[in-house]
Amino acid sequence: MRLVSFEWYGKATLGVRDGAHVRVIGRESLEALLARGVDLAEYVNAQAAQERLLASDLKLLPPLQRPPKIICVGLNFADHTSESKYEQPDYPTLFFRVATSLVAHEQPMIRPRVADSEGLDYEGEIAVVIGKGGRHISKADALSHVAGYSIFNDGSVREYQFKTPQWTVGKNFDGTGAFGPDLVTADELPPGVKGLRLETRLNGEVVQSASTDEMVFDVQSLISIISEAITLEAADVIVSGTPSGIGWARSPKLLMKAGDVCEVSVEKIGTLRNVIADEAAG
Amino acid sequence: MRLVSFEWYGKATLGVRDGAHVRVIGRESLEALLARGVDLAEYVNAQAAQERLLASDLKLLPPLQRPPKIICVGLNFADHTSESKYEQPDYPTLFFRVATSLVAHEQPMIRPRVADSEGLDYEGEIAVVIGKGGRHISKADALSHVAGYSIFNDGSVREYQFKTPQWTVGKNFDGTGAFGPDLVTADELPPGVKGLRLETRLNGEVVQSASTDEMVFDVQSLISIISEAITLEAADVIVSGTPSGIGWARSPKLLMKAGDVCEVSVEKIGTLRNVIADEAAG
Repeated sequence: MRLVSFEWYGKATLGVRDGAHVRVIGRESLEALLARGVDLAEYVNAQAAQERLLASDLKLLPPLQRPPKIICVGLNFADHTSESKYEQPDYPTLFFRVATSLVAHEQPMIRPRVADSEGLDYEGEIAVVIGKGGRHISKADALSHVAGYSIFNDGSVREYQFKTPQWTVGKNFDGTGAFGPDLVTADELPPGVKGLRLETRLNGEVVQSASTDEMVFDVQSLISIISEAITLEAADVIVSGTPSGIGWARSPKLLMKAGDVCEVSVEKIGTLRNVIADEAAG
Repeated sequence: MRLVSFEWYGKATLGVRDGAHVRVIGRESLEALLARGVDLAEYVNAQAAQERLLASDLKLLPPLQRPPKIICVGLNFADHTSESKYEQPDYPTLFFRVATSLVAHEQPMIRPRVADSEGLDYEGEIAVVIGKGGRHISKADALSHVAGYSIFNDGSVREYQFKTPQWTVGKNFDGTGAFGPDLVTADELPPGVKGLRLETRLNGEVVQSASTDEMVFDVQSLISIISEAITLEAADVIVSGTPSGIGWARSPKLLMKAGDVCEVSVEKIGTLRNVIADEAAG
């Protein structure tokens, strides 16, 4: 099942894809449904028939607009760690994103107008959406805590990422974190999204390509290790890391500018597409 | 005006201090009131008289339990940067905390039961609560965006803080971020909380003592610089940094263990007090 959030009569609305159409489900958000422990497939099937809209007409929103936490994983592909000039840590490298940084599929990713930045870099990733929360979740149990998967472009303003020892600001400019288009429920995908191809394209050219099998910490390990420290809550999102090929590590650097088109495709999940736009003048 | 959140008949409730008492205001959270642009003093004064409870009877909650963001500032006192062996960055060093890490005044701060940690370290700080949100807020305007101030103990699990290049996990264990007791509205304090003494005591002994005048980035600068990148929203919290004296930098290390009492006092704001407890066995 593929769930989408979109704007309808000015309000966030949940729908389910049905071929080229989206069937309206209701106004309750995925965050709220997951927080009250709803099984998404059962819930959707139990809804009375509502309007069917043409998918291509819709203005999508990120599948979740206000997840309780967005936990990003850095340095989770060894070849990306090498190009980033870090040593590979033996523990997941985590940082948070905040909701103000999110943009939807087909909405512009924003290159900020701060003076000392050349541009915005791409990072194609898989987003894991937590269903049932918990603490001290075992690796064996971890996948039962996943509601579904989506795609993320962890757009990074590198100069700001490296101004201080913490990457926070470079990873949290408004409108730099693209998320979507669909939340694909876990039952439709291989367990832990093993063996899927992830590919990022900039203006049609492949710039990142890897298999999820190359992740240093797989989805089960991430859930288990994070929850040793931090309670995972329903609707939390884990953005699981990017492979090599980022623009900042190239010579010359390849940074995104207004008008560029960046796409992240993950086999069986879909394609997240965004045009880059400059931040409006103040 | 001093606002407190507390549990009453099992539900989060907002009240205002009145000497040794707390007057019940209502069930709407500070997050919700600030999000709808309410002036807190006007709102409180407009409420009909409700019950007065003895403050010492109440089980406090953090003044805000679900702020949209908790933005922490590292390396914001030069002498703390020195003891931490970092170079002083010329830009604020930011990291996020998440709500699952918060505990209230007089609730235990939790020393986690992860195998490879000796203990929990203290970091006394001032918390700035945003009233009106915004982006690209000028330094001259910044203080008009502050609703009030509170106190924070940014409890840190150092081994986890330094396992990877990002401090995230060591700063986000459940129950390590003490926040409270009161939200003191900005009108009761010097502009930008300038010139206030901040003191941390462990089992009665002073372990940190500094003036807010020593902050590398003052409150105005933090709001202005952060909002160049990130939209500040109503009820966001900025935890503004700790001075020198942390336990991890001492020789021998001074780490908190079960039964210890940690207090953070800020002149004119109050005292945040927490006993340390070990995480319950699983």
